[in-house]
Amino acid sequence: MHVRIGEAGKRRGAIQIDLARAACAGTRLLQRAGEGDQAVANAQRLDARLRGDAGIDRPAMNDEIGRAHAASRERGQRGLSKRTTAPAHVTPLLGQFAHQAGGLEQRQAGSDGQMLCAGGWALGTWLTDESMPATASLMEQEARETPAVAARLLGHRDDLARLGERLRALAPRYALALGRGSSDAAALLAKYLFELRLGVPTVSAAPSVLSIYGRRLALERALLLVISQSGRSPDLVEFCRAAAGPEVLRVALLNEPSAPLAGAVDTCLPLEAGQEKSVAATKSCLAAMLLAFALAAYWRADRDAIVAFERAPDALGKALAQDWSAGEDFFAADGSVYVIGRGPGLAIAAEAALKLKETMGLHAEAVSAAEIRHGPLALAGPRLRVVIFAARDAAFESLRQLGDELAQLGCPLLFISPQPALSPLHVAPDAEPVLEHLAMLLRFYVLASAGALRRGRSPDAPPLLRKITETR
Amino acid sequence: MHVRIGEAGKRRGAIQIDLARAACAGTRLLQRAGEGDQAVANAQRLDARLRGDAGIDRPAMNDEIGRAHAASRERGQRGLSKRTTAPAHVTPLLGQFAHQAGGLEQRQAGSDGQMLCAGGWALGTWLTDESMPATASLMEQEARETPAVAARLLGHRDDLARLGERLRALAPRYALALGRGSSDAAALLAKYLFELRLGVPTVSAAPSVLSIYGRRLALERALLLVISQSGRSPDLVEFCRAAAGPEVLRVALLNEPSAPLAGAVDTCLPLEAGQEKSVAATKSCLAAMLLAFALAAYWRADRDAIVAFERAPDALGKALAQDWSAGEDFFAADGSVYVIGRGPGLAIAAEAALKLKETMGLHAEAVSAAEIRHGPLALAGPRLRVVIFAARDAAFESLRQLGDELAQLGCPLLFISPQPALSPLHVAPDAEPVLEHLAMLLRFYVLASAGALRRGRSPDAPPLLRKITETR
Repeated sequence: MHVRIGEAGKRRGAIQIDLARAACAGTRLLQRAGEGDQAVANAQRLDARLRGDAGIDRPAMNDEIGRAHAASRERGQRGLSKRTTAPAHVTPLLGQFAHQAGGLEQRQAGSDGQMLCAGGWALGTWLTDESMPATASLMEQEARETPAVAARLLGHRDDLARLGERLRALAPRYALALGRGSSDAAALLAKYLFELRLGVPTVSAAPSVLSIYGRRLALERALLLVISQSGRSPDLVEFCRAAAGPEVLRVALLNEPSAPLAGAVDTCLPLEAGQEKSVAATKSCLAAMLLAFALAAYWRADRDAIVAFERAPDALGKALAQDWSAGEDFFAADGSVYVIGRGPGLAIAAEAALKLKETMGLHAEAVSAAEIRHGPLALAGPRLRVVIFAARDAAFESLRQLGDELAQLGCPLLFISPQPALSPLHVAPDAEPVLEHLAMLLRFYVLASAGALRRGRSPDAPPLLRKITETR
Repeated sequence: MHVRIGEAGKRRGAIQIDLARAACAGTRLLQRAGEGDQAVANAQRLDARLRGDAGIDRPAMNDEIGRAHAASRERGQRGLSKRTTAPAHVTPLLGQFAHQAGGLEQRQAGSDGQMLCAGGWALGTWLTDESMPATASLMEQEARETPAVAARLLGHRDDLARLGERLRALAPRYALALGRGSSDAAALLAKYLFELRLGVPTVSAAPSVLSIYGRRLALERALLLVISQSGRSPDLVEFCRAAAGPEVLRVALLNEPSAPLAGAVDTCLPLEAGQEKSVAATKSCLAAMLLAFALAAYWRADRDAIVAFERAPDALGKALAQDWSAGEDFFAADGSVYVIGRGPGLAIAAEAALKLKETMGLHAEAVSAAEIRHGPLALAGPRLRVVIFAARDAAFESLRQLGDELAQLGCPLLFISPQPALSPLHVAPDAEPVLEHLAMLLRFYVLASAGALRRGRSPDAPPLLRKITETR
C-alpha cells in the first residue's frame, strides 16, 4: 500500500509543490519543537514562494527544497528518535506527526491546517523508501478494511435467514427506510432493493415529521429499516421508538450495538465495521449497503443473491486492486460536478457526491438520470464535470447514451462501469449488478482520498464536520 | 409591470453593458433585415467591445451606444412599422422581436443567442417610456397569472370535497406521490402534507422501477397521486396503468385533461393553469402544490386549511406586490448555491433550486436543513451562497439559527421568510405556513426571471431543455 501522491506529482511535473508543502510542514513542526531559527526562516521563505505559485522559479525552488529537506530530515529524525526505536518506521511517523499537527491546527485556526495535513502526508511519502508501506489517510485505511468487514458480515447468515423468514411471515405491505448522511444513501439503496426485488413500496422516512412537527405516522404491517453508524442521533431514536406496533417490525443496521438506537427497535444487525475514525464514512456505509442487499436476498430467499452476498469479500478485494490512477486529476480543479446514477446506482451516486463534498470541498450533486432532462441538463458544458456510475443492469444502455451525450456537450466525463472498453476506471464484472455498484463505490472512496490530498485537503478531517452528528 | 433590468442596471452603473447588448441585438436584427452595412459595422464593433468588457472605455462606449441606438431605433421602427399600426406598442414589439430572434438563434446555434435574448429585453425596456407597461419574460408573465389560476381552482371545491370523502372512506394505509422536474417538487410537498397533516406514510415513487427494471409494485389500499403538466411522459403513464387495483385510488393533477395520463388513473383534478409556454414551469407547479394542499385539507375535512385554500388567490396576489429588488444582485455571479428548507419547505427549496439551474445556469442544490451537518456543510464559506425558505412553522427557529451560523461562516445569505425584521425579501404572514411557502415561491419565480435577464440569459428558453420531456 503506497500513498500515490508522490508518483502522481512526478507524472505531472508538479512535484515541487508537494515537496515544498512537505518541507514547510517539516520546518513548522521543528519550529514548534524549538529546533532553531533556521527552520523558521526556511518555512517563511517557502511559504512566501507557495503563495506565489504562479511565478515559481523551478530550479531555484528545487535547490531550496533540497536544502530545507535535508535540514528537516536530519532534525526531524533526531527530534523523533525519542519517540521510536525502530528506524524503519521513523519517516512514516514523521508524516503521521505532521498530519496530526495539521489536523490540530485546522481545528484551531481553520483552513491553513489543511495544507499542513497534506504536506504531512507528502512528507511521509517522500521521505519513505517507495518499497516500504507508507501511511495512508485514515479514510483510505478504513476503506481498505471493507473486504474484511464483508467477511465478518458472512458470520451473520443465520440471523439474516431467521429475519428473512420473519419478514416472509409478516409480509409487510410497505417499508420505511431511514438514515442520515451516508446512511441515508444506504437507506436509498434499501428502498430500491425492496421495490425492485420484492415489489414492496418503500418510504424514505423524514424523521422531522415527528421530531420537528410532532406528528406520529400511522404504521400498520410495515418494515421499518433504520441505518446508523453511531446509533445516537436523537431524531432517529425518537422516530423508531414512536413507530412501535404489533405488526411493525423495526430493524436497525448499527455499528455500535450498545447505542441508544438499539433499545428503540425490535432487532439489530451489526455493521461489523469496527471503529471508524475518519469523519468521511467508508467501510460502515458499504457494510450497511451490503447488509441491505443481504436482507433483501434472505427476505426473498433468493439463492443467487445469497451466493452473491457470499462472494462480496472477494469482489470488494478485487476492486481495491484496480488501478484508477488515471482518475486522480479529474477532481483537481474547483467547480461543479454531477454524479449520475439510476435505480440502485442513484444511491451510489448520492454517497459518492457526499464524499466529494466532504473530502474535496467540491460542489458535487447526485442527479438521477431520469430527472436530468427535466432541468439539471441546463448546466451541461465544459465547466460541468460528470461522473456516471453504471452497473450492468437494465439501466446500463441509457446511462451509456447519456454519457455520450454529455461528453458531446463538452462535459469532462468519468464513466465508471464494469466495462473496460468504456471505462478506464472499471471494476471486475459480476453477475450481480449490486455487487458491481458496491465495488465501484469502494474503489471510488480510495480515489476520493487521493483526490483530496491532491487538492491539499485532509480527507479525514473535513472543515466544519463532526463524526457523530446529532440531529433534532 | 416593468422589466426592471434598466433600473437595476442604472443603480449599479452597469447600464453600458445592457445598452451595448441591446444595440447589438438591434443592429443584428437590422443586419438580418438587410438594413445596410452601417448596422453590421456597429454590431461588429460593439461585439468586439463586449468581448473585452474588462478594458471598456466608458465615455467612448456611451457615445458609440448613443449612435448605434439612434440608428437602431430609427431603422427598427421603420422596419417594424409594417407589423403594427399602433405606435405606442412599437418599441415593446421591437424588444419582443429581438427576443424571438434570440430564442431562434439560441436553438440553432447554442449559447450566443442568449445574449441576443437578453439584449432584446433590454432594448425593449430602454426604448420604452418607463411609465408604459413593458414586455416581461413569458416566465414572469405566466408566474403573474398564478393568483388567477388559484381563483379558478376554487371552482373545484365540490370535486375536492367528494374526493376527500372518498379518501376518508378508503382510509389508505399509505400513499405514493410521483412527478418529474417541478412536478416532483410538488409531489414532495404532497408527501410532507400527507405525512404531517394525515399521518399517512408516503412513498416518493420511482417510475423506473417499472419502466426500466420491469418490476410491478404490490399496492394495496393506497392512494397514488401523480402530478404532471403535460400528462405525456410514458414512464408516468405506464406506472399509473400498472398500479390498478380494487383498493388503489389513482388521482392525477393534470394541466392537459385530454393527455394520455388521464386515461391511466381513476380521477383527475385539473391544474387550471392554462397554456404554459415558458420552459421554466411556474403557474402549473404552484397550481399543483396548491391542489395538493387542498387535497390534504379536504381529505382531513380541516376547516382552517380549507379556508386557507380559499384565501390563496389573495395571498399570492399580495406576494407579487412585494418589492424584492434588493435580491436582484444576489445571483449575478457564477458559482454554487444551496437552497435550504425543512419539512414542506424542502419541497419549495427543491423547486427553487431547479429554477436557478434552468433559468440562470447556476449550480443550485436543494439541501435539507437536517442533512446539512452530515456532509454538505463542508462547502460553507464566502464562495457558497445560501438561500433559506422559512415559513413560520415548527422549523422556523432552527432555520433562523442555521442562517445565522452560515452567515458567520461567511456565506452570502438570502433568508426568505414572512418576518420583515429578518428578511428584506419577505411576504405577508399568514396563519397557514404552507400558504406562506407558496407565496415565497411565487415571488421567487419573478426574482429568478429578473436574475436570469441580468445574467444575460433568457428565462423562457434555457439551453438544452424542452417544455415537454418524455422519460422512459
